[in-house]
Amino acid sequence: MTRSSIYHRPTDEYAYPIDEQTLHLKLRTRKEEVQTVQLLFGDQYEWKDGAWISQQTEMEKVATDALFDYWLLSIQPTYKRIRYGFFINNGEETILYTEKGFYEKAPEDPSYYFSFPFLHASEVFRAPSWVKDTVWYQIFPERFANGDLTNDPKGALPWASEPPSQKNFFGGDFKGIIDHIDYLVDLGVTGIYFTPIFKAYSNHKYDTMDYMEIDPQFGDKETFKELVKTCHKNGIKVMLDAVFNHSGYHFPPFQDVLKNGEKSKYASWFHTKEFPLKGGELPNYSTFAFEQTMPKLNTQNEEVKQYLLEVGRYWVREFDIDGWRLDVANEIDHQFWREFRHAVKNLKPDLYILGEIWHDSMPWLRGDQFDAVMNYPFLTNVLNFFAKDQISKQQFIENMTSVIQMYPSNVNEVAFNLVGSHDTPRILTECNGNTDRMKLIYTFMMTFIGTPCIYYGDEIGLSGVMDPGCRECMPWEMEKWNKEMQQHIQSLIKLRKEEKLLANSGTFSFLAHSDKDECIAYSKKDENKTIIVILNPTSKEATHSLPFHLKGRKLIDLLKNKEFAAESDHLSVTVAPFGFEIISF
Amino acid sequence: MTRSSIYHRPTDEYAYPIDEQTLHLKLRTRKEEVQTVQLLFGDQYEWKDGAWISQQTEMEKVATDALFDYWLLSIQPTYKRIRYGFFINNGEETILYTEKGFYEKAPEDPSYYFSFPFLHASEVFRAPSWVKDTVWYQIFPERFANGDLTNDPKGALPWASEPPSQKNFFGGDFKGIIDHIDYLVDLGVTGIYFTPIFKAYSNHKYDTMDYMEIDPQFGDKETFKELVKTCHKNGIKVMLDAVFNHSGYHFPPFQDVLKNGEKSKYASWFHTKEFPLKGGELPNYSTFAFEQTMPKLNTQNEEVKQYLLEVGRYWVREFDIDGWRLDVANEIDHQFWREFRHAVKNLKPDLYILGEIWHDSMPWLRGDQFDAVMNYPFLTNVLNFFAKDQISKQQFIENMTSVIQMYPSNVNEVAFNLVGSHDTPRILTECNGNTDRMKLIYTFMMTFIGTPCIYYGDEIGLSGVMDPGCRECMPWEMEKWNKEMQQHIQSLIKLRKEEKLLANSGTFSFLAHSDKDECIAYSKKDENKTIIVILNPTSKEATHSLPFHLKGRKLIDLLKNKEFAAESDHLSVTVAPFGFEIISF
Repeated sequence: MTRSSIYHRPTDEYAYPIDEQTLHLKLRTRKEEVQTVQLLFGDQYEWKDGAWISQQTEMEKVATDALFDYWLLSIQPTYKRIRYGFFINNGEETILYTEKGFYEKAPEDPSYYFSFPFLHASEVFRAPSWVKDTVWYQIFPERFANGDLTNDPKGALPWASEPPSQKNFFGGDFKGIIDHIDYLVDLGVTGIYFTPIFKAYSNHKYDTMDYMEIDPQFGDKETFKELVKTCHKNGIKVMLDAVFNHSGYHFPPFQDVLKNGEKSKYASWFHTKEFPLKGGELPNYSTFAFEQTMPKLNTQNEEVKQYLLEVGRYWVREFDIDGWRLDVANEIDHQFWREFRHAVKNLKPDLYILGEIWHDSMPWLRGDQFDAVMNYPFLTNVLNFFAKDQISKQQFIENMTSVIQMYPSNVNEVAFNLVGSHDTPRILTECNGNTDRMKLIYTFMMTFIGTPCIYYGDEIGLSGVMDPGCRECMPWEMEKWNKEMQQHIQSLIKLRKEEKLLANSGTFSFLAHSDKDECIAYSKKDENKTIIVILNPTSKEATHSLPFHLKGRKLIDLLKNKEFAAESDHLSVTVAPFGFEIISF
Repeated sequence: MTRSSIYHRPTDEYAYPIDEQTLHLKLRTRKEEVQTVQLLFGDQYEWKDGAWISQQTEMEKVATDALFDYWLLSIQPTYKRIRYGFFINNGEETILYTEKGFYEKAPEDPSYYFSFPFLHASEVFRAPSWVKDTVWYQIFPERFANGDLTNDPKGALPWASEPPSQKNFFGGDFKGIIDHIDYLVDLGVTGIYFTPIFKAYSNHKYDTMDYMEIDPQFGDKETFKELVKTCHKNGIKVMLDAVFNHSGYHFPPFQDVLKNGEKSKYASWFHTKEFPLKGGELPNYSTFAFEQTMPKLNTQNEEVKQYLLEVGRYWVREFDIDGWRLDVANEIDHQFWREFRHAVKNLKPDLYILGEIWHDSMPWLRGDQFDAVMNYPFLTNVLNFFAKDQISKQQFIENMTSVIQMYPSNVNEVAFNLVGSHDTPRILTECNGNTDRMKLIYTFMMTFIGTPCIYYGDEIGLSGVMDPGCRECMPWEMEKWNKEMQQHIQSLIKLRKEEKLLANSGTFSFLAHSDKDECIAYSKKDENKTIIVILNPTSKEATHSLPFHLKGRKLIDLLKNKEFAAESDHLSVTVAPFGFEIISF
């Protein structure tokens, strides 16, 4: 047995409470090397006749990726405390894995074992309960709809009269969104993520000038209040973008430092290296990337911290927003985010906190900071497989398994999945214009673990290269829409709402497959029901055999809402090129 | 190459800042499988001609345990941000290890790599600077010295007239400690850890009745103030024991719940399962272990939290104590400890916070909770080797290496090392009365990484089985003392104070050794100096060859304070049975 490949640590995705009574324990072993794993466990204080009382129970192999098998057990320790080790058997030998290493015979002293010392209710990772049912829609306000020409910024161009550039403006605003609320309701979305709306210099508004004001091109605070109310009345949650990593160049405190140098009372608000401040290609102050117009805020400074925490509270308190999306969240210190969570959740306990982090985000998802992160690893893997055919089906499944196994299961349930944003090429462009591939990608996102987000305009077939190309004006002439795409996404949303199992209430697994299988198949199930999704990522018709004994069972084709019975023991499903089937039983 | 044995994650002991500029990156590979590791790294925002700019630098193999080699690099990212991967070569192939898996060719997209997104000054793990120079002495106040017979509890026995039992009292008090301050100064200790001193029922005082009062058998608040002042005047820090996991049975809020059941205003202060409360062998309320006299406090309850935080602040604010040792710290929720840290460090930034945790403590040592934990894994390994001969020299070194590699290096520097406490048999008893073994153990503790703690009376040769046996009265008749032991420990403390390198300023390594070597040898070094410690754990004289080119170099025997020169290139040192040598060059 490859002992050096066996891994567990009583923290993060390897040991976490999922409710006040229940703990998930996970073990990782080398792929296809281990036959069975038994958990040996007990309460460290429970002894009889001078011996520690322990018992054993079997773990389940729940997933396999390129290198590892993953073993899981859900357990309810009687006194909320547990000491444990893993009896690992490979058919030839059984060894016990503990905190102090490997043993052939179980140590008698419980202090040799792994420990999860107490299961506290406050340490259960709990995102707001509404999140997992939510279908998000991302709006870039400058480009969604222009409802009020009177607030257009100077030099605004007629709607969609030019391709989007770094500098041009088209006058999108809140009124435009309010005017089209029926469109969003009709599509079925239940949450909007707005890129920044505070007073800023650029068209993307990521260079804030005033965190307490609405950008005048979008409307005023009254219009925003009306927008939030309109959304809420229509069952739509509102999430704003908090750009706290950096301010804009025209943020008055930064202007003060530019002018007064180290004498400015804001001198310690930024990461300054020397005075006077100098911009250019390599500014002598820290910035977002090397962008001189985005000076990095010193969130370790108490005044800055208090100012930004009040920003966080203000828009919740006064406008009743439902979520904060945190821009460049990974480059701000953890302590700031802990205090931020405390500040905003005190006002509204079911507020959603979403961090923008593109890489492994475990340190932000330990329950004390964010509820979720933007799932870019999901996006990368989706693109490489469905859009670009750069990896095999096997690799796709293995990579996606690695993404899932990276976090606790309750973290995965609210992952913010996306297939494109204002920071990436549009998904249709990534698919090289192939709408079949794009449809399949949306099918996958809408039926996978986590909450899906539609980037405005994707649903009617907008394309666009890396920004600013992906920030085109939403066309409101219906003849320009890809109606089939719209219907496709609409019907997926409808299905997701009807079938709660699809919206993250069940257990997800990729189904066993052979090398000959062309399709990707996975299930979501709970005690009562199983839903199977089969995707054909090829341009040819493909047949997929389901690895279940189904003879005589009643099956439902969820897309056609048609009931049928399996005639033989194994069900083979024929799937059209780039097509899919969703079956429940 | 065994890819499944390679491990890194940008958190915890694998990636941590050691100052505002410098990051430690660590990689773990299968033992003796890898020849070289190169870090490929860059700033994710630094591009030229459409390509990400990256560079490479070599990592050093710093340690090996039973299963793994550990590779370390200390690096100063230019803009405090770093993306990186590991080029791993085993002589046959070179592969690149990234967040997204293994590659033969380096991916061009920096988002495939591991990320340490920003190095924040506030996230550097910083224990108070005085800690690493401190030599601790643990006092169990009931048993150290009785200086005031007038405050003896009812039924107190004449000093040392009986063996210690669960129930007997001997009247130890603060006056006794003040009276013997010269003894402690003479021994050389610079910090005292007091087991609980607050009003309690038992002789060990872990069953608090009043967190705001001194137990009358020890004196009053004035006596305690005098004790703290006396300690401070003599260069000795004072650490108290915070027993916040549970109160005592006689704690008035618990008595109120016992009496009034769910109608008590303190009903939610405890983890109650049903009313009325019932004690006995299996109480119907949560307790420490199954001890009915120690009801578990509900530290998630806001009132309890505020009450205990004020206790934490009170003794710092009013009595100027220097540290809190946290009893059963692992069974209290993390959020409580985060707020505790904030509360007490606000009053006294260089206050020391030490958690009692016997197992892997990484989740408490991420900088937001404790400064250190009691190093029981160190104790286990020391006992198994030096005291009990149950493991080989090889196993000892490997186990100790695992203990070290479990945490960041700045965490290890302030580990609270101990070879016994009020909760374990005394070290002399563990050594079966063999004072040579015990002396060697103290030599090891005083020269290893971390801060040593002497359990009162060890230094004069007290023995004692598991508690209550290990809680004997300190004998003050000098003729009962093992003076050789006392001198031994005294001279080790003196040496540790003179040689700053011994007190944790340098880099620790076990020296290469062959199977034939009987001795354990390790070095501590910085840019200017190397100190070598050689321990002979056998009952026969042993010779140890130092793996350095030393010919002509000036060496100092630090124990005899004698200078000598190495005559040949390799120096062989002869070490007496259970003896040791400490050499610097």
